[in-house]
Amino acid sequence: MAPFGFVGIGIMGEGMATCLLNDGRSLVVWNRDASKSEKLKLAFPRLVTVAATAATVVETCAVTFSMLSTLEASQAVFPALVGAVKEGKSIVDCATLTPERMRDMRGAVTLAGGRFLEAPVSGSKAPAAQGALIFLCGGDAALYAEVKPELAVMGKADFLFGDVGAGTKMKLVVNMVMGDMMVALSEGLSLCGAAGLPGDAEAGLLKVLDLGIMSNGMFRLKGPKMLAGDHAPNFPLKHAQKDMRFALNLGDQVGQALPVSAAANAAFLAARAESGDDDFSAVYEQQKAAK
Amino acid sequence: MAPFGFVGIGIMGEGMATCLLNDGRSLVVWNRDASKSEKLKLAFPRLVTVAATAATVVETCAVTFSMLSTLEASQAVFPALVGAVKEGKSIVDCATLTPERMRDMRGAVTLAGGRFLEAPVSGSKAPAAQGALIFLCGGDAALYAEVKPELAVMGKADFLFGDVGAGTKMKLVVNMVMGDMMVALSEGLSLCGAAGLPGDAEAGLLKVLDLGIMSNGMFRLKGPKMLAGDHAPNFPLKHAQKDMRFALNLGDQVGQALPVSAAANAAFLAARAESGDDDFSAVYEQQKAAK
Amino acid sequence: MAPFGFVGIGIMGEGMATCLLNDGRSLVVWNRDASKSEKLKLAFPRLVTVAATAATVVETCAVTFSMLSTLEASQAVFPALVGAVKEGKSIVDCATLTPERMRDMRGAVTLAGGRFLEAPVSGSKAPAAQGALIFLCGGDAALYAEVKPELAVMGKADFLFGDVGAGTKMKLVVNMVMGDMMVALSEGLSLCGAAGLPGDAEAGLLKVLDLGIMSNGMFRLKGPKMLAGDHAPNFPLKHAQKDMRFALNLGDQVGQALPVSAAANAAFLAARAESGDDDFSAVYEQQKAAK
Amino acid sequence: MAPFGFVGIGIMGEGMATCLLNDGRSLVVWNRDASKSEKLKLAFPRLVTVAATAATVVETCAVTFSMLSTLEASQAVFPALVGAVKEGKSIVDCATLTPERMRDMRGAVTLAGGRFLEAPVSGSKAPAAQGALIFLCGGDAALYAEVKPELAVMGKADFLFGDVGAGTKMKLVVNMVMGDMMVALSEGLSLCGAAGLPGDAEAGLLKVLDLGIMSNGMFRLKGPKMLAGDHAPNFPLKHAQKDMRFALNLGDQVGQALPVSAAANAAFLAARAESGDDDFSAVYEQQKAAK
Repeated sequence: MAPFGFVGIGIMGEGMATCLLNDGRSLVVWNRDASKSEKLKLAFPRLVTVAATAATVVETCAVTFSMLSTLEASQAVFPALVGAVKEGKSIVDCATLTPERMRDMRGAVTLAGGRFLEAPVSGSKAPAAQGALIFLCGGDAALYAEVKPELAVMGKADFLFGDVGAGTKMKLVVNMVMGDMMVALSEGLSLCGAAGLPGDAEAGLLKVLDLGIMSNGMFRLKGPKMLAGDHAPNFPLKHAQKDMRFALNLGDQVGQALPVSAAANAAFLAARAESGDDDFSAVYEQQKAAK
Repeated sequence: MAPFGFVGIGIMGEGMATCLLNDGRSLVVWNRDASKSEKLKLAFPRLVTVAATAATVVETCAVTFSMLSTLEASQAVFPALVGAVKEGKSIVDCATLTPERMRDMRGAVTLAGGRFLEAPVSGSKAPAAQGALIFLCGGDAALYAEVKPELAVMGKADFLFGDVGAGTKMKLVVNMVMGDMMVALSEGLSLCGAAGLPGDAEAGLLKVLDLGIMSNGMFRLKGPKMLAGDHAPNFPLKHAQKDMRFALNLGDQVGQALPVSAAANAAFLAARAESGDDDFSAVYEQQKAAK
Repeated sequence: MAPFGFVGIGIMGEGMATCLLNDGRSLVVWNRDASKSEKLKLAFPRLVTVAATAATVVETCAVTFSMLSTLEASQAVFPALVGAVKEGKSIVDCATLTPERMRDMRGAVTLAGGRFLEAPVSGSKAPAAQGALIFLCGGDAALYAEVKPELAVMGKADFLFGDVGAGTKMKLVVNMVMGDMMVALSEGLSLCGAAGLPGDAEAGLLKVLDLGIMSNGMFRLKGPKMLAGDHAPNFPLKHAQKDMRFALNLGDQVGQALPVSAAANAAFLAARAESGDDDFSAVYEQQKAAK
Repeated sequence: MAPFGFVGIGIMGEGMATCLLNDGRSLVVWNRDASKSEKLKLAFPRLVTVAATAATVVETCAVTFSMLSTLEASQAVFPALVGAVKEGKSIVDCATLTPERMRDMRGAVTLAGGRFLEAPVSGSKAPAAQGALIFLCGGDAALYAEVKPELAVMGKADFLFGDVGAGTKMKLVVNMVMGDMMVALSEGLSLCGAAGLPGDAEAGLLKVLDLGIMSNGMFRLKGPKMLAGDHAPNFPLKHAQKDMRFALNLGDQVGQALPVSAAANAAFLAARAESGDDDFSAVYEQQKAAK
C-alpha cells in the first residue's frame, strides 16, 4: 500500500500516527522538531520515512494528514504543504482552527488542483493514543470515503457534516458545551465550598452527581483533581477559551444568542492571564477566588 | 414491625410508599386527595391504613415520612403534623424547600419535643418508583441512623451532610448544576440549528456528545425529545427555575458569585411565563426563539 | 406646630432632620447612639427634644419619621415603635428594605390602629443634607398628602406609586439601573486599561463619555475616583449588592428575566468579600483584576 | 484654499460635508448614489465639485475624508481610493470598522506613499448636521494636526489616542458602555412594567432617574420613545450589536473579561433577527417579551 503523509507529530499527532503504523500503514512524516519524527522512525523502522521538508511529504504521498495544533503552527507550515499540491494530491487537516481559515485552506488546495478535507477531532491525548478519536469532517465527500479506513483506525467514529467549515463548527459547538459544563461544575464545587458542604467524590457533590442522571466522565475525571488543586494541562485553558470565543462568534454570525456560554467565556477569560497554560479546569481557582 | 407514617402520596410519594410496602412495611397514609390513598390501600390492603387526617398519622406512628412537593402543600399540611408532635415522634421531610424553611420546621418539631430530619431527594418519578432515589439529609443523626433501612429501601444512596439545611443546600447545588447543563445543551442544540448543523442522536451533536467524555444520561434522555419538541413535564420548568433562584440566593448569602448559573436562571425565567408547566427542557424553545 | 418624631439620626437621618429643623419644625428625636441626638439638640436647642426611648417618640408625636438604614437596625427598633402605635399615630418609614418587610410593617402598624407610609429615598448623604432627596412612596394616600410639606422640605421630589411595597420596588429598580451603570463604566474603564487607552476625564474615556449623550453625574463624580483607586464609601458595595439581589428577586416574583443585572450582581458579589465596605465603585478593582 | 475630498455622502457624511461647506471650504465629492452628490452641488454650486469616480477625488485633492458607514461600503470603495494614493496624498477615514481593518487600510495607504488617519466619530445624524461630532483619532500625528481645523468645524472635540487602531478601539469602548446602558434602562423599564410600576417620564421610573445623579440625555431621549414602542432607527440595533461584538473581541485579545457587556450583547443578538433594522432601543421589546 502506498504510504500516507503525516505532518505534525505532536501530542496528538504522535498517537494518531502510531495507530496507523500499528495497523501496518507506511507513513512519510515530518515535524518541525525533527526528534519527534526520528523517535517514530526508531519505533517503526520499516514503515516510517522521515521527510526533509513538509513539501516533500506532499510530493511523495497522494494523501497527507496534517495535525498542526495551533494557528501559528498551521500558518507556518501550511504554505509549504500547499506549495507542493497539484492534481492527485489530497490534504486531510485535523486541526481545530476557525471555519474561515479552513475554507481559505480549502481554497488554496483546490486552486492548486488538489482535494481538501477538514477533519478536526474531538478527544485529547489518551483517545489519540488509543485510536478512539472522533472525526468531525467537512469537505470533499469522495476524499472522505477514501480515507474512511484510516479515520477508522485512528478513531472510534467519524462524521461528514457537509462542506468545509461544517466539521470545525461542530467541533466548536461540542467544545462550547464542554466549557459550559466545566464552569457549571466549577460553580457547583465553589458553592459547596462556600456553603460548608463537601464536594468530594466519596460523600460530597461529586458523589451525588455521579449517582444521578448527570453522571459523566468529565466530572468523574476532572472533579477530584479540581478539589485537589491539580490542573496539569490536558486541555489548556487558553485553548478552551479560544474555542468558546470562536463558538460565540459563530453564534454572532448566525444570529444565535448564547448567554450562558458568554458568561462561561467571561469566566475563562478572567482566568486566562493567571492560568492560561493550566488545564481548563483551573477556571475553578478563579471562581473560588471570586467568593 | 410498627407502621410508619407517610404523608403526601403524589407523583413522588406514591413510588416511595410503594417501595416501602413492597418491602413489607406497614404504612399509615394520608393525602389531600384521598383517592390516591385509597388506591394504595386497594393495592396493599393488609399493609395500608388510610388516616382521616394528617395529624392522625403522626399520632399513630413513631416516624412519619412527609413528601409534600410544593411550598404551598407544605404550608397547608405541616401545621397539622407539628400539632400532633410530642416526645417520641419523628418527622422525616423529603420535600425540596429552602434551607430557612427546613430550619423553621425543625424548630417547630423540636420545640414540641420531637425529632426532625430533612431528607430531600435527588431523582424524579422513575427513580422514586424503582427505589433508586438519592437522599440528601441534614439534621438529627440518631434519627438518620434509625431510618437508614427505610431510606435504603426507597433509594440507592443516602448522605447526612450535617445540620438541618445542609441537605437542602446540597440538593440546590445539584439542581443548579443540572439546570446549567440543561441550558448548555440547549445552547448547543440551538447553535447547531442556527448554523445548519445536525443536532440529532444518530449523526449530529447528540451523537458526538454521547461518544465523548461528556456523555451522560440527561443529554441522552432529554436531547432527542427536545429536538422533537416533546417537553412533557418530568421536572417542571417552574420548579427548576425556583431551585436555580434558591441556589443563587444561597450563593448570595455565602458570598459566592455564580455568573453562569445566574445567566441560566435568566434563561429559565424568560421561558417561565410560556412554558412553566412544561419540562425544564422547554428552555430550548425560548433559546431557539432567541436567534 | 406640633412636633414631628424622628427616629434614626445617622448619615441620612442627620441631614434630613436638619432640613426640617432649618425650616422651623420642632422634632422629638431618638437614636441608638444618643450622642447623635445630643449633637442635634446642641445645634437646635429650642426645636429639638431628645426622647429617652424610641417608643416615647411615637407616644409624643402624631407623625414619626423613621430612617433606620439597615434591616438589623429596623428589626431592633421597629418593635418599640409599633408597640407605641395606637389610633392617631402615623409612621413614615424612609428606609430601603424589601417590599415584603414593608408590608409586614404596614400590617403591624395598621393592626395597632395607626397609619403607615413607606417613603424610601433616592439620594445619599449630600442630597440628604441639601434637602434634595427623592421620596418614592407607597401606602396611605391621606398620610402621604399630610406629610407632603415635610417631604418637600427634605426632598426635591416625591411620588406615591400605590400601595405599600410599590415605593420600595421603585427604589430597587432605580438602584438596579444604577448598579448596572456602575459595572458598565467599570468594564469600560477596565477595557481601556487593558487595551492601552486612556480612561481619564481630561482626554480619555471619561472625557469622551462626558461629551456625549451618555454624560451623567455619576460617571463624572465616580469615574476619576475609580481611576485614582479612591473608593471611600458613599454607597457601600454590600448595600448596592443587596439592592441588586432584591431587584433580581422582584424580577423572579413577577417573571421578568434580567440577564444584564444578574451579571452585574455577580460582579458585585465577587467583589463583596474584599470590598464590601468600600464604595460600590470598588467593583472596578475586581473587574480589573479579572483581566 | 485647495479643495478637500469627501467620499461618502450618506446620513453622516451629508451633515459633515455640509458643515465644511457652510464654513466656506471647497469640496470634491463622490458617492455611490450620485443623486446625493448632486443634491449637495445644488445647495453649494460654487463650492462643490462632483467627481466621476472615487479615485478622481483622491487624484484631485491632497486630503480626502472618507465616511463609508459599513464594512461592505468600505470594502467596495476603498480599493479605488488607495489606487489613487501616492506621495502627498492623505486619507482621513471616519468610519467605525475594526482596529484590524483600520491597520490594513493604513498599511495600504502608507505603502502607496500616502498618509492615513483613522477618525471614527461618536455621535449620530443630528450631531453630524450640527458640527457636534467627537472625533476619536489614531494614526499620523502630523496629518492630525493639519486637519484639526476641519475636524473642529465638523465636531465639538477631537482626540488623538495613538497609533491607527487606538481611535477605533476607543469608539468601541464608548459604544459598549452605551449598549450596556441601553440594556440597563431596558431591564429597568421591563421590571417596572412587570411589577406594575409606572415607567414614564412624568411620574415614573424615567422621571425618578432624571431627577438623580444618573440623569443623562440618552435615557431622556430614548426612554419615552421606548415606552411608546417607537424604535425608528437612529442607531440601528444590528450596528449596536456589531460594535458590542467587536468590543468583546477586543476584550478577548487583551484578556479583559466583560461579563455584563457579554450579557448585553446576548440581549441585542436575541433581538437582532426581528429588530436588527430598528433603533437599538428595540432591545426593550425583546426584554419585555422575555417576561
